[in-house]
Amino acid sequence: MPLLANAEQMSWGTPRSAKLAIRKLLVDMRQTRTFSWPPVIVPVYRLPLSVVTSPAVIDLLGVLAYGELASFERTTVDASLAPTLEDNVALAQMAAAEFAHFEQISAHLTSLGADPIAAMQPFVSPLNQFHNTLTPRDWLEGLLKTYVGDGIAKDFYREISSYMDAETAKLVTEVLSDVGHTEFAISRLSAAIEHDPKIAGRLALWGRRLMGEMISQATLVALSRPALQDLFLRPPSGEAASATDLTAMVNRLTVSHAKRMDVLGLAS
Amino acid sequence: MPLLANAEQMSWGTPRSAKLAIRKLLVDMRQTRTFSWPPVIVPVYRLPLSVVTSPAVIDLLGVLAYGELASFERTTVDASLAPTLEDNVALAQMAAAEFAHFEQISAHLTSLGADPIAAMQPFVSPLNQFHNTLTPRDWLEGLLKTYVGDGIAKDFYREISSYMDAETAKLVTEVLSDVGHTEFAISRLSAAIEHDPKIAGRLALWGRRLMGEMISQATLVALSRPALQDLFLRPPSGEAASATDLTAMVNRLTVSHAKRMDVLGLAS
Repeated sequence: MPLLANAEQMSWGTPRSAKLAIRKLLVDMRQTRTFSWPPVIVPVYRLPLSVVTSPAVIDLLGVLAYGELASFERTTVDASLAPTLEDNVALAQMAAAEFAHFEQISAHLTSLGADPIAAMQPFVSPLNQFHNTLTPRDWLEGLLKTYVGDGIAKDFYREISSYMDAETAKLVTEVLSDVGHTEFAISRLSAAIEHDPKIAGRLALWGRRLMGEMISQATLVALSRPALQDLFLRPPSGEAASATDLTAMVNRLTVSHAKRMDVLGLAS
Repeated sequence: MPLLANAEQMSWGTPRSAKLAIRKLLVDMRQTRTFSWPPVIVPVYRLPLSVVTSPAVIDLLGVLAYGELASFERTTVDASLAPTLEDNVALAQMAAAEFAHFEQISAHLTSLGADPIAAMQPFVSPLNQFHNTLTPRDWLEGLLKTYVGDGIAKDFYREISSYMDAETAKLVTEVLSDVGHTEFAISRLSAAIEHDPKIAGRLALWGRRLMGEMISQATLVALSRPALQDLFLRPPSGEAASATDLTAMVNRLTVSHAKRMDVLGLAS
């Protein structure tokens, strides 16, 4: 899991349980030159499997599918909080586009012979926990959450698409295409901050919490899904990632996040 | 407004303000053989207008559009309350279908030269009030609300489609087509009641509140939109409705509602 490598440099409000888990993984990674999972949970994933039906690809599509479904639900709730009917409709349209993405991934899973429900199930609880921990208190926090969350997710999946087979990579790029959220969020957030500059501090803090919580939840997901880790260590294409590669990737994600916050004039 | 005529027989928990408003309208209806609005607010609707761009049709499509948008939002919230991931996905699919209906009506409004936002605006507040007054406490109340609400809405629009021009009537029939909600709600509600018969009382009460509140809100909407009343009194096709016609229609709606509750073994 790429996000682990940067764990010691983390300055966000990461829960203690996640910090401990990350530390344990880092120790593991140093003890074995290339990181590997405890033997007891590895064997099933070491079977020779075709690329497209490998557990890693199913896991990846499963987490992506439930991610889109959850985003659809959260965006719709945000839509109902919109200050104007125009914004309500605009956000509802984005939610509908997210649902269409969910259906695309779901159909792809079915075409691979996988059950979409079973593929999503392991990620329901961690993703719900992420969303429940970070329930926006108002319309602006909702917009920032979508802007920051979509941005990090997109960067992350773009980074790891080099580890996927071509067909999966194409689908992932497609379903992560911007549904108009970014421009919309920037325009509404910038206007709100310009109108009332003192909200910038609260929003900057909220942005840091979002980034920290995403790292923490991604770590917990990785801990429970060895197949996803395997995607990096025995990728279907390209070379296996080293600890240095993973650290570099987390750094790139962090820099991109800072740039996105900077667009709004917010400290990250 | 057809629902007014039955006001005196209402036994539901209708708010006092609505009851007073209904009483005033009934007095008006008796004083003038055919009911008419106070002259001060009528003139603008008495201009010769083409059928399809009449304020009544725009109003009708506006309330229908916002109704679908609001249903989409509520169904999505209900989806996130689903006890299983399968039910979550099933309900999210229905929500997406409701959003597609919203877009259809919205496009039709635009093709008539009307602004969908402006057409929906007058109905935002009463429909939000209806939904906020009746926020389901759990998954089952959410299902019953959709089942009862969709049923009454469909019956009502089917009744009044004879007063519409053919093109509008066709669109209305199309967007009110069942997206699978009815069968889904019946199956889940029946199973829940069978599993725990003592919830039947609470759900029956909830069904009565829903019906009462729909009548009450429909009355308030009618009070503020003379063009909608005009649809009955000077319909583009067919004959103007009399007070007797309206009473008969409310009775038919009430009977249908009772039948729907009966399917679940619930008293209405």
